[in-house]
Amino acid sequence: MTATVIQADAVIVGAGPVGLFQAFQLGLQDIRCHLIDALPHVGGQCIELYADKPIYDIPAIPLCTGRELVAQLQTQVQPFAPTLHLNQEVTEVERLEDASISVTTSTGQHFVCKVLVIAAGVGAFQARKLAVEGARALEGTHVHYRLGDASRFAGQDVLVLGGEESAVAAALKLTLEAHGPRSVTLMHRRDVFTADPVLLQAMRDAVANGTLQLQIGQPTGLFATEGQLHALQIAIPDGNTLERPAQQLIACLGLSPKLGPISQWGLVMERKQLVVNTETFATDVPSIFAVGDINTYPGKKKLILCGFHEATLAAFGAAAIVHPTRKTLLQYTTTSSELHRLLGIA
Amino acid sequence: MTATVIQADAVIVGAGPVGLFQAFQLGLQDIRCHLIDALPHVGGQCIELYADKPIYDIPAIPLCTGRELVAQLQTQVQPFAPTLHLNQEVTEVERLEDASISVTTSTGQHFVCKVLVIAAGVGAFQARKLAVEGARALEGTHVHYRLGDASRFAGQDVLVLGGEESAVAAALKLTLEAHGPRSVTLMHRRDVFTADPVLLQAMRDAVANGTLQLQIGQPTGLFATEGQLHALQIAIPDGNTLERPAQQLIACLGLSPKLGPISQWGLVMERKQLVVNTETFATDVPSIFAVGDINTYPGKKKLILCGFHEATLAAFGAAAIVHPTRKTLLQYTTTSSELHRLLGIA
Repeated sequence: MTATVIQADAVIVGAGPVGLFQAFQLGLQDIRCHLIDALPHVGGQCIELYADKPIYDIPAIPLCTGRELVAQLQTQVQPFAPTLHLNQEVTEVERLEDASISVTTSTGQHFVCKVLVIAAGVGAFQARKLAVEGARALEGTHVHYRLGDASRFAGQDVLVLGGEESAVAAALKLTLEAHGPRSVTLMHRRDVFTADPVLLQAMRDAVANGTLQLQIGQPTGLFATEGQLHALQIAIPDGNTLERPAQQLIACLGLSPKLGPISQWGLVMERKQLVVNTETFATDVPSIFAVGDINTYPGKKKLILCGFHEATLAAFGAAAIVHPTRKTLLQYTTTSSELHRLLGIA
Repeated sequence: MTATVIQADAVIVGAGPVGLFQAFQLGLQDIRCHLIDALPHVGGQCIELYADKPIYDIPAIPLCTGRELVAQLQTQVQPFAPTLHLNQEVTEVERLEDASISVTTSTGQHFVCKVLVIAAGVGAFQARKLAVEGARALEGTHVHYRLGDASRFAGQDVLVLGGEESAVAAALKLTLEAHGPRSVTLMHRRDVFTADPVLLQAMRDAVANGTLQLQIGQPTGLFATEGQLHALQIAIPDGNTLERPAQQLIACLGLSPKLGPISQWGLVMERKQLVVNTETFATDVPSIFAVGDINTYPGKKKLILCGFHEATLAAFGAAAIVHPTRKTLLQYTTTSSELHRLLGIA
C-alpha cells in the first residue's frame, strides 16, 4: 500500500462512454479529474462486449461500433486530459468530516476529492473464474486469468483455455516468446474460435507447423502435488477422458461484471442501483453523483445517451461544490470565449 | 381552410435537432409521426442561427457545425420517414373528449393525434419586421419578408434590405431573372455584408458591372399613394436624407423566435416554459409531451444533448399511450432483431 494521497477536485469511477463524457463535461466546468477503471483500457462495456458491433441510437451518429464511439469520446475529452488509473477497482469510499470524499483502490491508490462521480455501469469487469475443484488454491501460481508477463512461463507446459480472441492471442504470443514455454496448448470445448481472421490464420499456421498444440475438450480436474500443478483431466467430445501434462493454466473465459464493493459504501440503493435525484444526479450524499447504468430514478432507461445527459447535469452539480463562489451560468460551446479557452481553441 | 383531417399516432411541433431525434426515438417505438415547423426547412435554430458555426459538446462528436449536426440527424431518422409539414405554425391545440389531441396549423392543416410532442425550442422563427411607419399596411403587396417567386417583381424597382446572406442572395437572384425587375438595389446601414465568400464576390461583381445598385443607409420612411409604394426615405451615414424610387421592398432582417400561441394551449407554464415531469417529459396533459428548450424542470439546462435524452424518455411515454397493450421493454439497437426490423437493417 502506498502512502501517497492524491488530492483531486473530482474522481470518476468507471471509464466507459459515460465516464469519459463525464470527464468532458467536468472539463467544461473547469474541473480536472481522475478516472479509475478495473479494466486495462478505457471504454468499459463498449469495448468488452461490443467493440465491433453496431450501435444505431447515439444521437446524430446513425451508425458506429462500440470501439468507434469510445475513440470519438476520447478525442472529445482530450483538451481536459483526465488522469487515468486503470487495472484497479475502487474498494473503499468514505465521506470525511470536512465533506471531502476518500477513495481507495485495489492497488492501494488513495484519493481525497471534493466530488466523486460513480459511472460504474454494471460494475467492474472481472475475469470469469474456472469452475474446477482446486483452481482457487492454485490461482496466481499455476492458474492464471490473464497472460501478463509471458517470460514467467519459460520452460513449462502451458495450457491456454478459451475460444475467444483473448485466448487465441495469448496462446500465439507464448509460441513467439524467445525463451518461451516448453509446449503451448490451446484448448476449447469445440474447434470453433472467434477472433480477427488474421489472428485465426496465424493460429492455424502455428498448429500446422507444430509450435502450437490444439486440444478440443473441457477441463474436469486438476492434478496437483504440494501446490504444484502437473496435469489436467480433460473430457473430450467422444465422451472419454484424458490426462494432459501442464504446469501452467491460463484461463481466458471472458469477463463478467461484478457490482463489487459499491453496495458497501453506505449509499441509498434500490435493486442494486444507486438512487439519484434528476436535478443533479447526486446520490443521497450530496457530493457523490451516480450517472449511467449504475443509477436509478423514475423513468430510468439504461441507454448510453441518457448517461450523457446525466453526466452533464452532474457536472453542473459538481461545479456548485468545487467552485462554490462562481456562478455556474449556462454557456454554449459555440459562442462562449470562456469555454473556448478551456477547450484550447484559439 | 382544408377540411381534410390527418389521423396520426404522433405529431411533433418543431423540426429542430430535438424534434428530428424525437421522430427517430418514436420510430424505435414503432410510432410514425408528422413533423411541423414554421421554417421552410428542418433544423430550427441550428440552421437559422449557427449553420456554419462550430458545436463542441454533442456527445462523441468533438466538432460539427449546426448544418452538419442536422444532416446527421436527418440521415439517422430516414428509416422512419416522418412526414414533414413546413412553412406553417401550429396555431391551435385542443384535447378532445376521447383523449386524442386536435392540432391546427396556420395553413389550415388539421391533425387528430394520440400523442403530441412539443419540441418548439424558443418558439417559431418569424421574420423580423420593418420598423417604419406604414410598412404593415403594405405587407404582402409592396413590402415583403422573403423573396418568394421572383417573377412577380418584373419591370419594377426593387430594394432589398439587409446585410446577411439572405439579403445578398435575394438581390443577386433578382439580377439574374430573365424577365426581372427594372432595377435592383441592395441596401444596408454600412458597407459590410456577411455571406459566403463566393456569393460576396458575385455581389461585388454585379455592383461593378451595374446590374446591382448598392445603397448604404437606413430606411426612415415610405412614400405610398393609394396603397402603392413609390419611394423610400433613407438616412445616409453623413447625416443627410435622400429619397429613392422603389415600388417593391424586400426586407431580409433575419428571423427572431416567437413563442406564439403555445401559451394559449392551456398547459401549465413557468417563465414561458412548459412544465414537465422528468419521468416521461409529459406536460400536465398526459398525452402532450414537451422536450428541448421549450420545457422546464428542476435542473433544466438548455442544451441539445439534454433534449436528446428528454426525447428518448418521451418516446417511452408515448409508446405506453399509442401501444397500450404492448409491453415497452428496453431493447438495444445493437442486439434487438425487432429494432433492426424497424430500422430496416437486413
